[in-house]
Amino acid sequence: MTTPKIITLTTDFGVSSPYIAAMKGVILSVFPEAKIVDITHGVAPQDIVQAAAVVQDVTPFFPPGTVHVIVVDPGVGTGREILYAEVGSQCYLFPDNGVLGPLCETAVPQRIIAVRNRALWREPVSHTFHGRDIFAPVAAHLAMGLDAKLLGDETSPMVKLTVPQPTVAKSRIVGEIRTIDSFGNLITNIHHRHLTRRVTDTSVCVLLGIYETYGIYRTYADLPEGALIALVGSNGHLELAVVGDNAAERLGAEVGQTVTMAWDR
Amino acid sequence: MTTPKIITLTTDFGVSSPYIAAMKGVILSVFPEAKIVDITHGVAPQDIVQAAAVVQDVTPFFPPGTVHVIVVDPGVGTGREILYAEVGSQCYLFPDNGVLGPLCETAVPQRIIAVRNRALWREPVSHTFHGRDIFAPVAAHLAMGLDAKLLGDETSPMVKLTVPQPTVAKSRIVGEIRTIDSFGNLITNIHHRHLTRRVTDTSVCVLLGIYETYGIYRTYADLPEGALIALVGSNGHLELAVVGDNAAERLGAEVGQTVTMAWDR
Amino acid sequence: MTTPKIITLTTDFGVSSPYIAAMKGVILSVFPEAKIVDITHGVAPQDIVQAAAVVQDVTPFFPPGTVHVIVVDPGVGTGREILYAEVGSQCYLFPDNGVLGPLCETAVPQRIIAVRNRALWREPVSHTFHGRDIFAPVAAHLAMGLDAKLLGDETSPMVKLTVPQPTVAKSRIVGEIRTIDSFGNLITNIHHRHLTRRVTDTSVCVLLGIYETYGIYRTYADLPEGALIALVGSNGHLELAVVGDNAAERLGAEVGQTVTMAWDR
Repeated sequence: MTTPKIITLTTDFGVSSPYIAAMKGVILSVFPEAKIVDITHGVAPQDIVQAAAVVQDVTPFFPPGTVHVIVVDPGVGTGREILYAEVGSQCYLFPDNGVLGPLCETAVPQRIIAVRNRALWREPVSHTFHGRDIFAPVAAHLAMGLDAKLLGDETSPMVKLTVPQPTVAKSRIVGEIRTIDSFGNLITNIHHRHLTRRVTDTSVCVLLGIYETYGIYRTYADLPEGALIALVGSNGHLELAVVGDNAAERLGAEVGQTVTMAWDR
Repeated sequence: MTTPKIITLTTDFGVSSPYIAAMKGVILSVFPEAKIVDITHGVAPQDIVQAAAVVQDVTPFFPPGTVHVIVVDPGVGTGREILYAEVGSQCYLFPDNGVLGPLCETAVPQRIIAVRNRALWREPVSHTFHGRDIFAPVAAHLAMGLDAKLLGDETSPMVKLTVPQPTVAKSRIVGEIRTIDSFGNLITNIHHRHLTRRVTDTSVCVLLGIYETYGIYRTYADLPEGALIALVGSNGHLELAVVGDNAAERLGAEVGQTVTMAWDR
Repeated sequence: MTTPKIITLTTDFGVSSPYIAAMKGVILSVFPEAKIVDITHGVAPQDIVQAAAVVQDVTPFFPPGTVHVIVVDPGVGTGREILYAEVGSQCYLFPDNGVLGPLCETAVPQRIIAVRNRALWREPVSHTFHGRDIFAPVAAHLAMGLDAKLLGDETSPMVKLTVPQPTVAKSRIVGEIRTIDSFGNLITNIHHRHLTRRVTDTSVCVLLGIYETYGIYRTYADLPEGALIALVGSNGHLELAVVGDNAAERLGAEVGQTVTMAWDR
């Protein structure tokens, strides 16, 4: 693993929260050369499933050895562990609450370490803000090149997170809306790897409640304004959009709502 | 043109969108030393006119050679070109949808290149997220010093954007609200270069619907709390504000609403 | 004081405001190597008290010599001074409106300088955006190592800010809600230094309107979901939370509302 210098932050603090800057101040106090990138601070409070989707979708695009810090942590101050893991070429620091689960569906963590070496922490450690007092200084040390084995002992299983998986049958796939982006596009948990049947013709129908659309298109502008369109989005997931409009608002759609793909026969 | 190292991002992704970080990850994977600055991610979805105003107002303040990436791109995945242009001392990467129009009202683009050299792109290129797969890696290469002529062939006209211009007559100028800032100040499309008559006295009246105010002042605090005040703002545009309050809320004002300057005679 | 390279920004511009990027462009034009960190841009418009709390809570976590720029400035363009001050190991640039008051309750500013040397400013200076034309270039010069005495003459008193202090009596402390974080936690102006009586037992009651809770706990998860809980938060302030929920929404609480700690006898 190359020596990383980049640290990313994924939190549920809210984009204007000064807590974010407190973490950055601590990181830069340990390692002034750190390059810090915000992934998002807009995860809904304590929404581990949403954070897990972000981590899965975005972190693999970073340079090898990037240290990804995830602080969506309802169990802060309890006995829950803080873990370090390497997945693919990336490094992760996160509370052991399942937030790495979806990422690890398709990649096996290379080592998992329980972060327990207090010598690397900021003292005194607050019981309510481990982001500032544990995650931040530990991430800074890792970004400086600290060997992860100095964080604590290797451990093995992580807490599991139950994330809804689509049901794949011969002539239909039943999934659900996984995330809604800022354009109101509805991104499902149906991934292109689930699409074992041909979808380029119009024999496939995608259903969302009372709405339906035929065929899977390449891009939003492939149908006229106002049409409901299905396509495989940039992260490989089946996506429903209303051309030139906000599908979530227009259709009253919500995360968790069922989306069905059905082939004629 | 000096070798740039700074890349800015202007998008309509929404400030908490993880898509922003995906672009940053790709940029840093190509060029780990890039310095990335967010201009705004709060452009209303697909609002090219609003993005164009931001680009015009803010990008000239950056160091020469900065690479400004603009991804407000309703035509993503269609045949629309992606362009590179140099305007003043700055470099721009943008979809050919007119977003550079207002900037080019007062400065002629020095060269315009159609970005077509796929060797610089991230493969496979998604049909829905060129920000990540084309704009980001190309910007990174430019920031590393790549000669822009390697991006593709020189081209010439850009798509035009029709942006409302004020009507300037002898005793009146009729313009409209161009943007509303986060304080609720109403920034018009009347620029100080349009003010060919003397405005320092109280012979000029500024009208917005049923509201009016006399004179053009220097700064917000020049009238008492609650007063409607007109001034020339920091970008040279005529601006209406309510002292110590949010003019947009107080007056129910909206972008596009008519603002008239009228001289007594 | 070590040579600083980090500049932080605290403003009320709103997180999507292009004004922020205008400041960054000016900073980087003066000093391309500056490392700029956003503290928050979500201060309510012209809310000096809120900005003062952020400055007090967050800026001390930064490396020594960091230049903290605070632009919450209702008096822009009037005769109000712009000041430079050193407090603890940190440097501050701010309008003389009291925004450094709370920070200076527990630390004496080491020197205060009136920023008047126009040679360091960006010309022409707008009357409405000193953030871009004065604060940004001056901060950049400081971050480059400029001796602060070149900014202007030493001055002494700063404008005072009246921030509500808790009333501490033998068997009760009466304070108020000072800030509400993005989780809806209610952070009071009662600091642990005010807690001169034992609070680890259940003899102490914390009251907020019609709501009450007994005891001071370590962390949010120390009581069951839905319980009102009091604890000393990560900045040393007494805090009220609803476990796993948003206390501000659940209790209809607002900044300024009275919070009382009462001991049985």
